[in-house]
Amino acid sequence: MRFITTPLLPLLKDEGKDDMTINFMLNIDKQYMRQCFELAKKGAGKVSPNPLVGCVIVKNGKIIAAGYHKKFGGAHAERNAINAALKKGISLKGANLYVNLEPCVHFGKTPPCADYIIEQNIGKVIIGCKDPYYKVSGKGLAKLKKAGISSTAGILNSEAQELNKFFIKFVTTGMPYVMLKAAQTIDGKIADDKYRSKWISSANSRKAVHKLRAVYDAVLVGKNTVIYDNPQLNVRNVKGRNPYRIIIDKDLMLNNKYKIFKYNDGKTIVLFSEKTDMKRIENYSATGVTLIPCKMIKGKLDFKDALKKLAEMDITSIMVEGGAYTFNEFLKNNLADEVMIFIAPKIMGRGLKGISERKLFEKFKNADYSTSGADLLVNLRR
Amino acid sequence: MRFITTPLLPLLKDEGKDDMTINFMLNIDKQYMRQCFELAKKGAGKVSPNPLVGCVIVKNGKIIAAGYHKKFGGAHAERNAINAALKKGISLKGANLYVNLEPCVHFGKTPPCADYIIEQNIGKVIIGCKDPYYKVSGKGLAKLKKAGISSTAGILNSEAQELNKFFIKFVTTGMPYVMLKAAQTIDGKIADDKYRSKWISSANSRKAVHKLRAVYDAVLVGKNTVIYDNPQLNVRNVKGRNPYRIIIDKDLMLNNKYKIFKYNDGKTIVLFSEKTDMKRIENYSATGVTLIPCKMIKGKLDFKDALKKLAEMDITSIMVEGGAYTFNEFLKNNLADEVMIFIAPKIMGRGLKGISERKLFEKFKNADYSTSGADLLVNLRR
Repeated sequence: MRFITTPLLPLLKDEGKDDMTINFMLNIDKQYMRQCFELAKKGAGKVSPNPLVGCVIVKNGKIIAAGYHKKFGGAHAERNAINAALKKGISLKGANLYVNLEPCVHFGKTPPCADYIIEQNIGKVIIGCKDPYYKVSGKGLAKLKKAGISSTAGILNSEAQELNKFFIKFVTTGMPYVMLKAAQTIDGKIADDKYRSKWISSANSRKAVHKLRAVYDAVLVGKNTVIYDNPQLNVRNVKGRNPYRIIIDKDLMLNNKYKIFKYNDGKTIVLFSEKTDMKRIENYSATGVTLIPCKMIKGKLDFKDALKKLAEMDITSIMVEGGAYTFNEFLKNNLADEVMIFIAPKIMGRGLKGISERKLFEKFKNADYSTSGADLLVNLRR
Repeated sequence: MRFITTPLLPLLKDEGKDDMTINFMLNIDKQYMRQCFELAKKGAGKVSPNPLVGCVIVKNGKIIAAGYHKKFGGAHAERNAINAALKKGISLKGANLYVNLEPCVHFGKTPPCADYIIEQNIGKVIIGCKDPYYKVSGKGLAKLKKAGISSTAGILNSEAQELNKFFIKFVTTGMPYVMLKAAQTIDGKIADDKYRSKWISSANSRKAVHKLRAVYDAVLVGKNTVIYDNPQLNVRNVKGRNPYRIIIDKDLMLNNKYKIFKYNDGKTIVLFSEKTDMKRIENYSATGVTLIPCKMIKGKLDFKDALKKLAEMDITSIMVEGGAYTFNEFLKNNLADEVMIFIAPKIMGRGLKGISERKLFEKFKNADYSTSGADLLVNLRR
């Protein structure tokens, strides 16, 4: 992210702006907004279930202070930025404050940001997207305007929403954001005929997956993936905290010999049928995992009920890492928000078929492509 | 292709060139060579089995004439460029001649270009790649040097070879260049469970295929593709001539109701087993196609024998358009030089599996990716 330090504001304050000047102003606003995005991202993996928020304060065409929401329960981005300016002894009177999400008006773990902005006599507030959370939605903007602060929302609106897609899904639906991540060959296989799936994708793609694990609240796999792959589902080769590890094991058939049950961080969760024999539950509990009983529908685990229960634990985002049955159940039940498929330039021949739920896949209208090492990355969005 | 018209040569002619000057010269040479490539491409689809050749002649830092090989049997690129200059009354003495392929030294349909270059007192000849054809290979360069013309080969060597990959394969092996072209879904299906394959890929990709048909000498399909798709295999929506249409129909089971047998241009070829009942052959001949009897190996048509016979008809390049059995046979027999797979961002679910020959696919070490409308294009090369 390149940032322009030359004072630009003097060019903008005249009345009778022509179209070019207005475009120019919008571009400046967008540049500062992108700065907010970059700051906000620093909180990824640390602030959940809160949103990612970054803030820059601009005076006379220069950024005089910046801040971001660093961790859950800590000060909000706006407060951090304002305090940084005050610490340097700079008055904020008439300054422009840029923030990617609408400032809050409610008392949560911290006092409301809108009030703090008003107290400091900030001149103008430029907002990325409105906060859809019912306690804030539109109220932050209204409060600022009522206090006489010229405020505007919707600068890079869709990028701002994309940045907080986990948070937005969570607060608007009470469900976590679900992304299905698969690695397959050109012929659509996710494992060979002996269920071996390791090293299908390139080192680059595996690294990308570890980066994703560091920002998703949780990763989820089906029972068979635990049996055949014995995965650790932790963050390796990149910096970042480990996510929750969720296993679907309807009948509690697994045991503590698998790597996933060796952690002592309380972040392993098993989803199982509420109809499972109580005796099995007792055996399983000995491994120190969190057990969540879920409803059943026609002999299958009710994925929707499971997701609701995970949301109650403040899990806002889940990356589903397999296997094929689990992927297809999420698609069949229309519970996936996004799909990422790493396609390795290899042919497996005989092997295990990956994602193949045709009818529901059709709901993903937007495909983005990129390369990831030797692989292709297909990113499907609704 | 941007071309620099400012006279640059005066900068280059001093002795004691430093590294920067040499680099600069090489870049100039590359620019002119790229001009040759662009000219050469204009002959695509028209000059086979001859190579694609373009030529520019430069004097005092300006292109004074250019030419390319326009059609099979016509004058070569060098001759066209030289004649263009002579027509304008420009002397070629001391000029630099750029050509993407080594000038010929043998009498074919036209007299040797090397002699013509020497006659004109050209100062220097800069060549893309050597001509691997045994009648020319290295001899053109040697003849020019012997005549005292400073000559160099290998400017953008690999691009020059890529440009003439059909010709190079043909003259060095006596076999056509074979490219397998498939369109599939993300789950590796090339048709649905009723063998319907139309519209898997985007309009862009279909247009790209028509462009390929206009430059490949021939397209080839198996019998089942004729039955299920009833394709025309001609060039539509883009400019260009129709290729030969080759059908593999071992036992001559097809009949003249299919679209592919409605042409009267003598460009439909059927490959069949030499052991097929003579009576069947007579029936088939009535549709006016060229019938090529081929050897059999273990009850299967000998693809290698078939390709050799097609090469004898001066077919230097074949695009294989399906189906799955045909693709996999080419791979099994190690007869494919290149694979192009258009991957549509769709899931088919139940359907017909595409390319799945794992072992031989591994020979394709180089994967290039690009987008084609809504599709991905995976281009695999050895």
